[in-house]
Amino acid sequence: MMNLTRAECAQWLLERDNFLILTHRRPDGDTVGSSAALCLGLRKLGKTAYVLENPEITPRFAALHENLTIPEPLPGQVIVSADVASPSMLPESFAPLAELTSLRIDHHGTGTAFAPAQCVDGGSASCAELVFDILGKMNCPMDAAIANAVYTGLSTDTGCFRFANTTAHSFAVAAACAEAGGDIFAMNQAYFETNTRSKLQMQGWIAANMRLLLGGRVALCAIPKAVEEEIGVTADDMDNIASFSRTVEGVKMAATVRQGTPGQIKLSVRSVPGLDSAAVTARFGGGGHAGAAGATFCMDWEEAVEAVEKAMLEVCQ
Amino acid sequence: MMNLTRAECAQWLLERDNFLILTHRRPDGDTVGSSAALCLGLRKLGKTAYVLENPEITPRFAALHENLTIPEPLPGQVIVSADVASPSMLPESFAPLAELTSLRIDHHGTGTAFAPAQCVDGGSASCAELVFDILGKMNCPMDAAIANAVYTGLSTDTGCFRFANTTAHSFAVAAACAEAGGDIFAMNQAYFETNTRSKLQMQGWIAANMRLLLGGRVALCAIPKAVEEEIGVTADDMDNIASFSRTVEGVKMAATVRQGTPGQIKLSVRSVPGLDSAAVTARFGGGGHAGAAGATFCMDWEEAVEAVEKAMLEVCQ
Repeated sequence: MMNLTRAECAQWLLERDNFLILTHRRPDGDTVGSSAALCLGLRKLGKTAYVLENPEITPRFAALHENLTIPEPLPGQVIVSADVASPSMLPESFAPLAELTSLRIDHHGTGTAFAPAQCVDGGSASCAELVFDILGKMNCPMDAAIANAVYTGLSTDTGCFRFANTTAHSFAVAAACAEAGGDIFAMNQAYFETNTRSKLQMQGWIAANMRLLLGGRVALCAIPKAVEEEIGVTADDMDNIASFSRTVEGVKMAATVRQGTPGQIKLSVRSVPGLDSAAVTARFGGGGHAGAAGATFCMDWEEAVEAVEKAMLEVCQ
Repeated sequence: MMNLTRAECAQWLLERDNFLILTHRRPDGDTVGSSAALCLGLRKLGKTAYVLENPEITPRFAALHENLTIPEPLPGQVIVSADVASPSMLPESFAPLAELTSLRIDHHGTGTAFAPAQCVDGGSASCAELVFDILGKMNCPMDAAIANAVYTGLSTDTGCFRFANTTAHSFAVAAACAEAGGDIFAMNQAYFETNTRSKLQMQGWIAANMRLLLGGRVALCAIPKAVEEEIGVTADDMDNIASFSRTVEGVKMAATVRQGTPGQIKLSVRSVPGLDSAAVTARFGGGGHAGAAGATFCMDWEEAVEAVEKAMLEVCQ
């Protein structure tokens, strides 16, 4: 397996053509934005490039993939993954493509090296920043569409520059996106300043029902499926709901436990610097970053909530 | 009156010494941050500089002025104002200093030219950005303290980069602040990411109980005192709660009706451009702006809620 620098990755891409870009399951702004930016940039440089249609894409980010997707891989395509930490992060229908992936571009430091070549920077706040840098090394001129794609990944993965992962580089890339004509204000409004009633109700429910542990430093939010159904939340409503719990005064680490398909548990953990979210999710076979991590596993509901509580207490005590 | 460019302003400051910096009444992050940055920068360049103690400073931003203030002007000081649009914006006790001010540094395009020299850029999102540029023209090296002061002004005046005034330059200055060791994450946490459980619960209650009128364009939130008491909200929790309702998807005008002292009704209205909040509050003897207005009046609770609904429908239909 080859670890490529940004410049080497740019060279690798320049030497090839006919790309298919993969995104991860439960697609967020960063996987959609970085795949869109990469696809647009490659096309701008005269390459043929597509994003593989993600069956789980939500209306929130679907517009970014418009005119970029194909429903099925074509023969001979060079497969590149964007923001995919491990094969298990691929949508189920993409599974056979994991071992056919030639290049993995990612910012998950603790991911799996599932491709023969990878350009991974665990210190990058978003995969979109990495794609921005790689496109720069390819001398790809920025335009408003690329800027919008990059800014979507960058802004959503940094919580609009509020998360601890935000770096000087994040701001510098945002400046470049604004300079290139990206519609910064409209995106901020759409991603951060517009709420659905159901999302706000869900947040109110969480605020009322979260359990505070270790003197309020740790919050455990177990959201039964029945509550989600009663409030009528959408997937977009629940996107990054884990970060919300972390905003409660005094809370340093927050875990959100939800029910997926029957028997399936979805865990998301967020924490401030100094506390390791990934150390909690690792116990459940998951991954992620110190500040934000997740896991999907099978366990009885009550048992899972208890196990998450125990894991958090052990990591934070 | 001389209008100075950033470079001319830097030269003007370099040619003088013994500075006193003024801030505006109801001091916000930008006037405190830009005055602190200017004072720190001038000192770093070997100048003598102080900020005049603002009697209205709040705990939120007080630390930025630590070790920088004096309680009274000293003879012979060169007075510079930071983020002060007009003499009426000065705290009352500063009033005699307006006509003694030698230089006004500001980003309010519609302000009053009350000083013989000024460096004003109405296109700058924050005064702090302008101060950052001027310090740069003076070849003042950045450090973490200056970065924190600049970032405070910049981030608070742009709503953490979400307001429409945010520019590429805002992001570039933020990048420089992060680069110089500013504690970006801690500031974002303190200024933007800390909520009380009670506030979040109140927001959830509002989301669940607001009445949507005119196809969801208008929201009416009537919050009985009993609900506030049950949740246990504080005055800080309810500060600007009216703006919250306006963030619900599709809502163009939102009114919040609360119970004050017995028999007293408190009305707050928020609206997007094109809808007149003040037209609603005027019917109840209140005032305000098109986008944000309020009224306090005496009426029976049920009757008041009905009257506010009627007023909103008439104004918005």
